[in-house]
Amino acid sequence: MANSRFIIIGGVAAGMSAASKIRSLDTDAEITVFEKSNYVSYIACGMPYFISGVIDSPRRLIAYDVSFFKEKRNINIFLRHEVLKIIPDRNTVVVKNLNSGEETKHTYDKLLISTGARPFIPPIKGISLEGIFTLRNLEDGITIKNFIDTRTPRNGLILGAGNIGMEMAEAFVSRGIRTTIVEKMPGILGTMDEDINEIIETELKTHSVSLIKSKGITEFSGINGVMNKAILENNDSIEADVALIGAGIRPNSELAKETGVDTGQSGAIKVNNRMETNIPDIFAAGDCAEAFHLVYRRNVYMPLGTTANKQGRVAGENMAGGNATFAGIVGTSVFKVFSQEVGRTGLTEKDALREGIGYVTNTIEHYSRAHYFPGTSKIRVKLIAERETGKLLGAELVGIEGIAQRTDIFATAIIAGLNVKQIAGLDLGYTPPLAPVYDPVLIAAGEIEKKL
Amino acid sequence: MANSRFIIIGGVAAGMSAASKIRSLDTDAEITVFEKSNYVSYIACGMPYFISGVIDSPRRLIAYDVSFFKEKRNINIFLRHEVLKIIPDRNTVVVKNLNSGEETKHTYDKLLISTGARPFIPPIKGISLEGIFTLRNLEDGITIKNFIDTRTPRNGLILGAGNIGMEMAEAFVSRGIRTTIVEKMPGILGTMDEDINEIIETELKTHSVSLIKSKGITEFSGINGVMNKAILENNDSIEADVALIGAGIRPNSELAKETGVDTGQSGAIKVNNRMETNIPDIFAAGDCAEAFHLVYRRNVYMPLGTTANKQGRVAGENMAGGNATFAGIVGTSVFKVFSQEVGRTGLTEKDALREGIGYVTNTIEHYSRAHYFPGTSKIRVKLIAERETGKLLGAELVGIEGIAQRTDIFATAIIAGLNVKQIAGLDLGYTPPLAPVYDPVLIAAGEIEKKL
Repeated sequence: MANSRFIIIGGVAAGMSAASKIRSLDTDAEITVFEKSNYVSYIACGMPYFISGVIDSPRRLIAYDVSFFKEKRNINIFLRHEVLKIIPDRNTVVVKNLNSGEETKHTYDKLLISTGARPFIPPIKGISLEGIFTLRNLEDGITIKNFIDTRTPRNGLILGAGNIGMEMAEAFVSRGIRTTIVEKMPGILGTMDEDINEIIETELKTHSVSLIKSKGITEFSGINGVMNKAILENNDSIEADVALIGAGIRPNSELAKETGVDTGQSGAIKVNNRMETNIPDIFAAGDCAEAFHLVYRRNVYMPLGTTANKQGRVAGENMAGGNATFAGIVGTSVFKVFSQEVGRTGLTEKDALREGIGYVTNTIEHYSRAHYFPGTSKIRVKLIAERETGKLLGAELVGIEGIAQRTDIFATAIIAGLNVKQIAGLDLGYTPPLAPVYDPVLIAAGEIEKKL
Repeated sequence: MANSRFIIIGGVAAGMSAASKIRSLDTDAEITVFEKSNYVSYIACGMPYFISGVIDSPRRLIAYDVSFFKEKRNINIFLRHEVLKIIPDRNTVVVKNLNSGEETKHTYDKLLISTGARPFIPPIKGISLEGIFTLRNLEDGITIKNFIDTRTPRNGLILGAGNIGMEMAEAFVSRGIRTTIVEKMPGILGTMDEDINEIIETELKTHSVSLIKSKGITEFSGINGVMNKAILENNDSIEADVALIGAGIRPNSELAKETGVDTGQSGAIKVNNRMETNIPDIFAAGDCAEAFHLVYRRNVYMPLGTTANKQGRVAGENMAGGNATFAGIVGTSVFKVFSQEVGRTGLTEKDALREGIGYVTNTIEHYSRAHYFPGTSKIRVKLIAERETGKLLGAELVGIEGIAQRTDIFATAIIAGLNVKQIAGLDLGYTPPLAPVYDPVLIAAGEIEKKL
């Protein structure tokens, strides 16, 4: 019997996870990865820290390089190769070498679409001027870093007050760039509630980041093709010699759609919990695909690095004949902006409202360590619980320490289906330097329980 | 109808939690607390940090003082009052004023025994010499601190390599005292497995703490009633001008026993999940009582501050006519020694062996933050899972950051009855400065799953 042939389109988190998983299960398989960019297996989430200088080399953001995959795992990687077409009834892909322009055909037994996502570029006049960037792949990070190193911009503009906008505001400030964030919506961080966001806004102010809300940018203008300012809806103008567009991302699902692969409302590829699409032998995983949400009980589009890695593994196992299932997500997400750590999991209050779920909500503040211990600080925790059952629906946290793993405690509780009374009774650890006798997790759950 | 009368014996964590809970539910109740020592509501776990100087005043270790309880909560507190006898068929206690020697009788509708625990003093010759201390109540902490301040001892000895021994070794070292820990058993930290303990032993060495294992102390000797050395079983002698006995604690349950209250094998008071004893109208809570263990499915004696607080609240609510239940424990415990944070929850491998449970176990090391992020460090995680069901039985963690709340994630998983496959699939947060894309929690669960 001939060796199985696996083709993977896109070699970042999901794609390379799948490739490695297939190899671990099938030593003889032919595994081929086509990657449009110059890099595989890079760590997109680390790029703001490379730009800020916290991480000194882009090499540190490559988990494994091409030679590792080729030599240690016998995985064929073709960089700067774009898959133009999938012909599912012939199990064939048409691939273009972006250097030579040559097109070739390759057949597969199983195919993975892990084409990722791209930044959304709002249709603003002048958005192609030099000095305006998006941040998605490793080249983007290197380009922005080089631009700042060589041009030493003084005024930075960030379009969009989401996670990436926050992380990049911090990166700009740490590079000595006076920074303004412009957000079209009335609030920052659309994925969080106001109770949390007000602390982030204060943090931005503390670090001299200007925040302009409820205003769109109508135009970028410049001289000799180089941006020097942005014009707002109210005709105010903001001087800027570097700008980052952080207006969200869109799934790279066009190739899938052209092939007849079903996509959802968001445009992302529909998958079942085995990461199969509607077309036989074609799988999808990562930022181009949906994921099953355990609270909504339906597929959603919430692309994140953790999900991409896990989905890639599941896809790889099933492509190699295994029987893995993706466990689903609850939208857990954490980030850091200056001194504040921020976390969310499950549904926000906005989400619960939109979903029409009867809920109660409560926000508390309590110490990260014993209240008398040096270094302690107050954490703010907002919980949302289902009114009828008391089950935890969501949690949002902000504070200067101990946020990420406390968010994870709530994520675990949501996934396990615990109600807030059960959470209030959890036997959690206590020692003055690390946690107070009643952890903020317990206090938050105990207080919301009283509202049920 | 006359106001209800509540008497509480012992005014620390459990007792004062109960008193406050009763007051919140019954504004007219007569609530009386008899406390043998000079303080109520002190925070025992903070004392090593007061002795080391990290916390500057003993006042910081008093959660609320007597006047707060009297004035704000209308709770009568009698310091230096010992309850000598309980007469259950007359709902009466006999109380002695330790200052005046006067004895009085008081009647109750509901009585709480929250008499706490005391250090076990091994029957070693010379153990009453000056310079040898135990650490339990606030007076102990103040006494040791004063001794170190005024006598500036140079050589410290710690008997017992448990949590308190570790914390006090750190306190001694930070006060400039050359420190030796003597442990009778072959291993340190009887409540942890060797995989974790070897890291702690290295940490002790790094901080020049000597550790002598498998040897008992046969005698303390001294001059003019002041200790100057300890003699070991093998006749070695250790110079020491200050010593701390950290040989475990025993429940203060004698008064309960004399009253006919049932106690368990450990000597601690038997309670149901309402914190009721076998005698009508008599409740017990805190370090003198047992607690229901959710993995063993039976009562155990694992006295901890968190449990005492929670049991006190439950007792108080039920004494006031409510219907609260104590959720139970899984033995979650965290502490810090020098730079190492240590956590455990559920069963250790030793526990599972002793219990005769079929188990698998696995130990991993993985990063606390993204592997390339400054400040990252490796965490060691040992898991124990039930062989038949894959359910998580226990977790032990050690590392220089991120241990306490990761221990709590595992505690939550154990309490929720998750198996290791479910834990490996948890949707946990990821951002380079706070957590790696595959958290150590997920790696640990994924690796042990392979052994099932």
